[in-house]
Amino acid sequence: MSDLAGRFRELWDELAPVGRAGSGGYLRYAFTEPELWLRDWFREQAARRGMPVAEDGNGNLFAWWGDPDAGDAVLTGSHFDSVPHGGAYDGPLGIVSAFLAVDELRAAGIAPVRPVAVAAFVEEEGARFGVPCLGSRLLTGEIAVDRAAELRDAAGVSFAEALGDRPAGADPALLGRFAAFVELHVEQGRALVDRAAPVAVASAIWPHGRWRFDFHGEANHAGTTRMADRRDPMLTYAFTVLAANKEARLRDAHATVGRVSVEPNATNAIPARVTGWLDARAAEPETLHGLVEAVRAKAAERARRDGTELACTQESATPLVAFDGGLADRLAALLDAPVLPTGAGHDAGVLAAHLPTAMLFVRNPSGVSHSPAESATDADCAAGVVALARVLEELACR
Amino acid sequence: MSDLAGRFRELWDELAPVGRAGSGGYLRYAFTEPELWLRDWFREQAARRGMPVAEDGNGNLFAWWGDPDAGDAVLTGSHFDSVPHGGAYDGPLGIVSAFLAVDELRAAGIAPVRPVAVAAFVEEEGARFGVPCLGSRLLTGEIAVDRAAELRDAAGVSFAEALGDRPAGADPALLGRFAAFVELHVEQGRALVDRAAPVAVASAIWPHGRWRFDFHGEANHAGTTRMADRRDPMLTYAFTVLAANKEARLRDAHATVGRVSVEPNATNAIPARVTGWLDARAAEPETLHGLVEAVRAKAAERARRDGTELACTQESATPLVAFDGGLADRLAALLDAPVLPTGAGHDAGVLAAHLPTAMLFVRNPSGVSHSPAESATDADCAAGVVALARVLEELACR
Repeated sequence: MSDLAGRFRELWDELAPVGRAGSGGYLRYAFTEPELWLRDWFREQAARRGMPVAEDGNGNLFAWWGDPDAGDAVLTGSHFDSVPHGGAYDGPLGIVSAFLAVDELRAAGIAPVRPVAVAAFVEEEGARFGVPCLGSRLLTGEIAVDRAAELRDAAGVSFAEALGDRPAGADPALLGRFAAFVELHVEQGRALVDRAAPVAVASAIWPHGRWRFDFHGEANHAGTTRMADRRDPMLTYAFTVLAANKEARLRDAHATVGRVSVEPNATNAIPARVTGWLDARAAEPETLHGLVEAVRAKAAERARRDGTELACTQESATPLVAFDGGLADRLAALLDAPVLPTGAGHDAGVLAAHLPTAMLFVRNPSGVSHSPAESATDADCAAGVVALARVLEELACR
Repeated sequence: MSDLAGRFRELWDELAPVGRAGSGGYLRYAFTEPELWLRDWFREQAARRGMPVAEDGNGNLFAWWGDPDAGDAVLTGSHFDSVPHGGAYDGPLGIVSAFLAVDELRAAGIAPVRPVAVAAFVEEEGARFGVPCLGSRLLTGEIAVDRAAELRDAAGVSFAEALGDRPAGADPALLGRFAAFVELHVEQGRALVDRAAPVAVASAIWPHGRWRFDFHGEANHAGTTRMADRRDPMLTYAFTVLAANKEARLRDAHATVGRVSVEPNATNAIPARVTGWLDARAAEPETLHGLVEAVRAKAAERARRDGTELACTQESATPLVAFDGGLADRLAALLDAPVLPTGAGHDAGVLAAHLPTAMLFVRNPSGVSHSPAESATDADCAAGVVALARVLEELACR
């Protein structure tokens, strides 16, 4: 094990037990005990490195290396919060790698010409208050303060209550200090495994959205209702799940139905209603549109055969995020790394509309994320730190 | 409207508001306020008719017309409790019709040679404590007293606590008083609509059972996981739902998947696990076996294609109940009524193993049951009362 991989492991082991559930996955929701512990840990790591920490009034933390007022700062970092029973790497890897990258530069005698800030964004997953990238949306003004303040968790606690104050909202002065944002993140697929590379640079985030499919039928007795007399919405739902899979494969897109709700959801009752949520993503907006329209048309046609009714509602839409092409090309050349698109949303996707933004991905052997099976080797994490240090040197130290 | 239909409507209207939810359906769970109100109503109706009421220590009520000790009694009646948001007719129609049938016989100057008992069985639907026909199972000894006493509702209240005592269990002396049981019930399908007849006699209850299908896959990110890298149990589930429907149609059997559970059930997560419950019923045990084996084989084959794993567990099995053939033929001839099988379980199905038992069905225009859409016209309900009165006259008054 290299020295750097060893130092990574040492720091990583400090976080490993925090918020880990019996499943092996993590429950690190914003402002709950494990996430508060991780925020304290962030302050302590920053203090050890002589990096003053500032909050932005939205729940986001910034640890500064160099003079925060010097301008043209380079922002890096990620988030601590997890999805329910999520993996260890999604989020924290970007923060730990940032502190270690600062250590690498310092050890090499390199000092920042322009300041570097390490961020811990709050509520990136949306697992507690329902809106992903809430911290970066507040900072950039992409969500109204009133709406964010009133978002509530499952127990009825509002975001403002959890934050301890009404969020501050958009901060153009703070944003204006940054010349670039570079977020390092574990890969959430297997493209780097296929390419036998430890690190990649992101080109874009696929456009994506959520569509709710409500299938209405007729509740009836499972034992006595002849098959021909049924109007069973579970059949239309099942057909639509398979159609979504097929249409996505035909287009090299992604379609998932991972959430379903049934009424009354009883073993001996034909359902009155089945609702499925379609998560769809594709490289191009036109492809995504074509995919969803094809699924909707197939569902509607099947509903006619089943005697059920379909209502399809778009619940969210996230347009294509094209990261700064010049910056991506520059970093790819610097690192000799492949350039890849991703299907997942990130704080980097929110910030990309406001400043030149890039992402680095670190290889994940399982390709799995949002699950305890999410992983990265210490050697690849060390390669990620080296890559991030080279990026910070390039952007802030020359 | 005939006088009898008017009298039916009058009595029926007394029950209509009891336990009705905003859905229009009923929440009449055993020993909850609405069902206790209905039990009081039962005592009051019996008292008005000079019919002494006895309890059996299991929660079942019996109102006696004639000397309870005279032997060879004819038992009729049904139950008050409902499924969640169930219809008005399933259960109460058999009790109301029994009181009105006694009125009809009395008005015609007919007296019982052998006694008649009107029963209200407890927890027929199993909606509160999870075991259907609990009252009749206790009375006949088909469930152990210890097990029944410890069945608990969703709030943790045991059946013994709700009953106010440890259940008495099997009562051969009481059972031995009955020469026959005839339960009148609203039809739970549309066979009588097709035959343009208001009343039918039951031949049998189809064998039926419940099978749990657990599909295990790999939790993963919906946005970033390539379709080819997925092990998505929702696909195997959806295919199995459609296969069950197809296999049931091929066999003139019934198959329903009305209940599903997903983990983690998040829009942006490929599920780790999907569980579906198959309710299957058929005229013959061999047909039922063939149906379930065909569904299981198709599910297993699909699981191999999807990279998922299937575990299939039988959760319950109810064998074929053939009602007393001689009694059914006698009543069908008496009433000039068709003879039909049914796919639903009833207290009559439990008692059929212990004494000659028959069922009468009353036409249901919607064919729907276990739903607010369950219905019967007042004229058909009156025809049901007339039929039941003729049956009681035939069996108890000659």
